[in-house]
Amino acid sequence: MATGCVIGVDLGGTKLLAGAVDPAFNVHHRATRPARAADHQAVLDTVVSAVAEVRDAIEGASGSVRAVGIGIPALIDTARGIAVMSTHLPLAGVPFRDLAAERIGLPVFLDNDANAAMLIEWRHGAARGCSDAVLLTIGTGIGGGLVVGGALQRGSQGAGAELGHMVVQADGPRCNGNCPSRGCLESVCSGTALAREARRLAEERPASGLGAALAAGREISGPLVTDLAHDGDAAAIEALAAIGRWLGVGVGNLVNMLNPDVVVIGGGVIAAGELLLAPARAVVAERALSPSREHVRIVPARFGAESGMLGAAALAFDGL
Amino acid sequence: MATGCVIGVDLGGTKLLAGAVDPAFNVHHRATRPARAADHQAVLDTVVSAVAEVRDAIEGASGSVRAVGIGIPALIDTARGIAVMSTHLPLAGVPFRDLAAERIGLPVFLDNDANAAMLIEWRHGAARGCSDAVLLTIGTGIGGGLVVGGALQRGSQGAGAELGHMVVQADGPRCNGNCPSRGCLESVCSGTALAREARRLAEERPASGLGAALAAGREISGPLVTDLAHDGDAAAIEALAAIGRWLGVGVGNLVNMLNPDVVVIGGGVIAAGELLLAPARAVVAERALSPSREHVRIVPARFGAESGMLGAAALAFDGL
Repeated sequence: MATGCVIGVDLGGTKLLAGAVDPAFNVHHRATRPARAADHQAVLDTVVSAVAEVRDAIEGASGSVRAVGIGIPALIDTARGIAVMSTHLPLAGVPFRDLAAERIGLPVFLDNDANAAMLIEWRHGAARGCSDAVLLTIGTGIGGGLVVGGALQRGSQGAGAELGHMVVQADGPRCNGNCPSRGCLESVCSGTALAREARRLAEERPASGLGAALAAGREISGPLVTDLAHDGDAAAIEALAAIGRWLGVGVGNLVNMLNPDVVVIGGGVIAAGELLLAPARAVVAERALSPSREHVRIVPARFGAESGMLGAAALAFDGL
Repeated sequence: MATGCVIGVDLGGTKLLAGAVDPAFNVHHRATRPARAADHQAVLDTVVSAVAEVRDAIEGASGSVRAVGIGIPALIDTARGIAVMSTHLPLAGVPFRDLAAERIGLPVFLDNDANAAMLIEWRHGAARGCSDAVLLTIGTGIGGGLVVGGALQRGSQGAGAELGHMVVQADGPRCNGNCPSRGCLESVCSGTALAREARRLAEERPASGLGAALAAGREISGPLVTDLAHDGDAAAIEALAAIGRWLGVGVGNLVNMLNPDVVVIGGGVIAAGELLLAPARAVVAERALSPSREHVRIVPARFGAESGMLGAAALAFDGL
């Protein structure tokens, strides 16, 4: 039964996941699309097509979809439903909520994708019951969500929790997309950084699994690195450990600054599990301050790669 | 008239300032002491002696002192009045509140010194009326205070807002005191870092004011650098600008993460004023994200070097 469903849409930097979600947060149908697009019109077409697919699958069965929630990797003016700034998608200044609502013919609710993921992990997932929690979603880029003092926090303009754009190496590599800085956490610890580190190791070690993949002409992507690492390839494990140590520097900063109960790691890269988290925890233990470093739990998102989509559904239920 | 006064005590890493403060936050008598001490007993003696001096001066005049508030550069368990961890003073594990109350014979209230400064700047100073604000006190070390979502935030254990221990250059210099990390903001942007940078420039440029001071055997301290810079010495101005640019990296991180209305800079080093703040603002404009970077004001603490003491007094009034 799929009564009283909403559709949650997680619009990532490279792919989109939409799902019909009932009030108990069961998922009834999923649709995925590539999300890279030349302009906001193409992004909108992708969202509309995925929502239509999910809606067709569900509405044939039982009841109608009530609303759509969309999480977007952008600074969102939630009051006006406008993407103020986006480092990964061509959405700056676009009144995305109203455009989407008009095309879909349902109420649409919008928030930053990582805020949405933080919301669902806090209500029903890995940060449940915590007064202070941090979420980092590590995918193409890094998104952030914050619960401080028992409330989801977005900053004075709703532009907050850009935790991936915390500089951890001031003279480090140029950051991604529209970020003008260098050495941001995102520049050394995203899926993009993982692929770069893995390519470097593949060239250095032609005999490794990574090296063989490169020689065979395969694209050295985050998922490939994770698969090879799970199969025991030392070079792939080392690439993940390097990213994990940078993650530890960033998490240590958040631990010192916010003394959270839990830091939740989501996004595609968390498929690596302990191969990413163990090195991160080791760096936090080495570099962060007591008693915060002993208190904090550093754990994977309960809803994994679906936390953004489920969080977007929670936005829609809240909005109704 | 000094009716209904409390005594606020700001226990810095190197010096102590105590003052009798009335309910309108007028200061009636000040006492200062050096704060460096071999053990917690010596720290306690210093506090008791400064409080006694202020109390004698006030109680002779009119009315009696009602309570004492103490801001300490340490992680404070505010419920139990215990300094859990201190990077600059020998206070770890000491039940400082009860020991001080017993010696002084008045109710004593304790908090982290930078939380106290944030409290007074938020209620009556540079962050008044803001829902989201950050305070950095730059002295021997760097202290931090946070207002997020309209409330002073201390984290889940009260150990939060250690903003000085945010790593901005992961392979940077060893941090101070009990911090096990490298390249924390405090390691590149405290009064200690300013003196180190100024000594380097003094050696490099013997003809400068800084060089002459070094040749004359003067100690190259933060206040000396600031005095020389205000007198126009290019080397001293450059030392402050170098520290200011690091401050900008740290402030930019906080702006991206928390989207605050205002970042308030206090502590001894803010005596340099625009010589410190202008380079910091330039880096925030260059490296932080829109719209947060345009929205935030970066300003000196209204109560300058007295914000910690006045904040400690506010703690005492709140406690009563």
